[in-house]
Amino acid sequence: MEKPYVLGIDMGGTNTKFGIVDARGNVINSSSIKTQKYTDIDEYCDVLCAEMMKLVDAIGGIDVVRGVGAGAPNGNYYTGNIENAPNLPWKGIVPFSELISKRMGVPCRITNDANAAAMGEMTYGVAKGMRNFIMITLGTGVGSGIVIDGKIVYGHDGFAGELGHTRIERGENARLCGCGQKGCIEAYASANGVARTAKEWLTKSDKPSDLRKLPLDEITSKDVFDAAMEGDEMAKEIFEYTGTLLGTMLADFIAFSAPEAIVLFGGLTKSGDILMQPIVRAMNENVMPLWKNKVKVLFSTLKDSDAAILGASALVWDVDARNAM
Amino acid sequence: MEKPYVLGIDMGGTNTKFGIVDARGNVINSSSIKTQKYTDIDEYCDVLCAEMMKLVDAIGGIDVVRGVGAGAPNGNYYTGNIENAPNLPWKGIVPFSELISKRMGVPCRITNDANAAAMGEMTYGVAKGMRNFIMITLGTGVGSGIVIDGKIVYGHDGFAGELGHTRIERGENARLCGCGQKGCIEAYASANGVARTAKEWLTKSDKPSDLRKLPLDEITSKDVFDAAMEGDEMAKEIFEYTGTLLGTMLADFIAFSAPEAIVLFGGLTKSGDILMQPIVRAMNENVMPLWKNKVKVLFSTLKDSDAAILGASALVWDVDARNAM
Repeated sequence: MEKPYVLGIDMGGTNTKFGIVDARGNVINSSSIKTQKYTDIDEYCDVLCAEMMKLVDAIGGIDVVRGVGAGAPNGNYYTGNIENAPNLPWKGIVPFSELISKRMGVPCRITNDANAAAMGEMTYGVAKGMRNFIMITLGTGVGSGIVIDGKIVYGHDGFAGELGHTRIERGENARLCGCGQKGCIEAYASANGVARTAKEWLTKSDKPSDLRKLPLDEITSKDVFDAAMEGDEMAKEIFEYTGTLLGTMLADFIAFSAPEAIVLFGGLTKSGDILMQPIVRAMNENVMPLWKNKVKVLFSTLKDSDAAILGASALVWDVDARNAM
Repeated sequence: MEKPYVLGIDMGGTNTKFGIVDARGNVINSSSIKTQKYTDIDEYCDVLCAEMMKLVDAIGGIDVVRGVGAGAPNGNYYTGNIENAPNLPWKGIVPFSELISKRMGVPCRITNDANAAAMGEMTYGVAKGMRNFIMITLGTGVGSGIVIDGKIVYGHDGFAGELGHTRIERGENARLCGCGQKGCIEAYASANGVARTAKEWLTKSDKPSDLRKLPLDEITSKDVFDAAMEGDEMAKEIFEYTGTLLGTMLADFIAFSAPEAIVLFGGLTKSGDILMQPIVRAMNENVMPLWKNKVKVLFSTLKDSDAAILGASALVWDVDARNAM
């Protein structure tokens, strides 16, 4: 292979991680910069590309690099732009792919972070060999990447796969989501959602719980998990509730694309069985008879720190395979 | 073109319609048999093929026919089987494609009825030229055919696109659906659903309505529509309610595949504006900001009597185009 390496970028609201990936999915070397530090997009790209060039120089220069793949919030695969990302410093439409390829001298492909994770899982992870699966990222929010016939679903405008904003609750009492709608599954089954459930339950009930020892406003999903592991009843019920809502929602996703598996990824999956068990139970209780006990629910097997970089890099291998680059 | 015709079959629980279609989407001639009359599948296929041969002989014999396409309840595109269709006389797994192609001497492809309608709409109807749309069939039940990147979504097992069985209501008070689940949109936004709403509202309230002149058990969606057209308030509210629920559900579908349009098809769409207006309003109220007022909602433009035959025939043209037949 003439150009055996790809650069992968995982852009988050706080940090931008990047690394060099080989065709086998090894992250050869990696580094990061602070996303929020650069309010000017050109300055951000200058610093990012200078830092990436340091990694590139260490492996023999840009001639051995096939391209750059980036996963970014609101990254649009069709246009190469980052469009109106609420948690990034740059407003409006940012022609990210163009800004990077111009500086690096190689093509750049982008997608959103959840799609990048799905690409990574399909190329290197637990979904290897699967043609139909749904990736659900359970982090601060809930993201998704949908794979049908071996391809990420981008839809008409490039923004398909916003399953975090399908509704698990309807009506006036449903929780307000960050997107402005009410009742989105993101408002319940994310790390923030778990913390929110804890705060609500602690406020509304008198039930004893070790969580009451913590300042109410500072309770995190990690605190709830730790308490549950210590046997705290309320904390265990919170995971039961969270998993039940997510599993119920998954039943609707299955009716859409009939996936072989649903792959869960992100911080909240570290909770393990206490989350997985109610998910699987609720999913099978709520899915149509033809899919009962037939759709796998799997945790991602990719190393958290590498997954998004790997996924982003897979964008380039994928395009390359189709001779489109 | 050496073989310029295709046979299209539209199998319903009551009637099986079939016709000869040319490449421009003209139904050259058509006929039908009673589905329920044949409890033996071999007898049914014998009669169906004999009747189709009569049409074929009139255009010059089987040598000018490229193949047979069929839309059937629970028809599986991957296997060619009809699998456990609740409203057909034949139980279990019926190797329909094989039974037909053996008798006719040409290949036979099948899919379910809603997917056939979507194929027809994409090839000959209002979705012509669209690469991403969702077809929703509003008949006795609610069916769907999802098109992504110009292809019907079949999923891992061939049964993707059961959007009639995603949930608009959750919890104990949600309506029981024919599928055994509770709260499916099919239980509300189908012809049966409209009739059910009328019966519920007439029973629960004392509000005056012309619908009270009809025997409660015999009220149909057509009765409700007729009453609404005569200015009956309750009947108008029933359509407002039905459209609002369906539009709210469509918002979730958009979050999945970001379609260019949603195409509505089937008996209930004859209601026109009285249904369309609340659908569009509720959809735009409930969809994420990035899609507000951006996704078209269209009624099918295909003639009801031809649409399913055309759609089924499109299965064969489609396969042919990909040289897979």
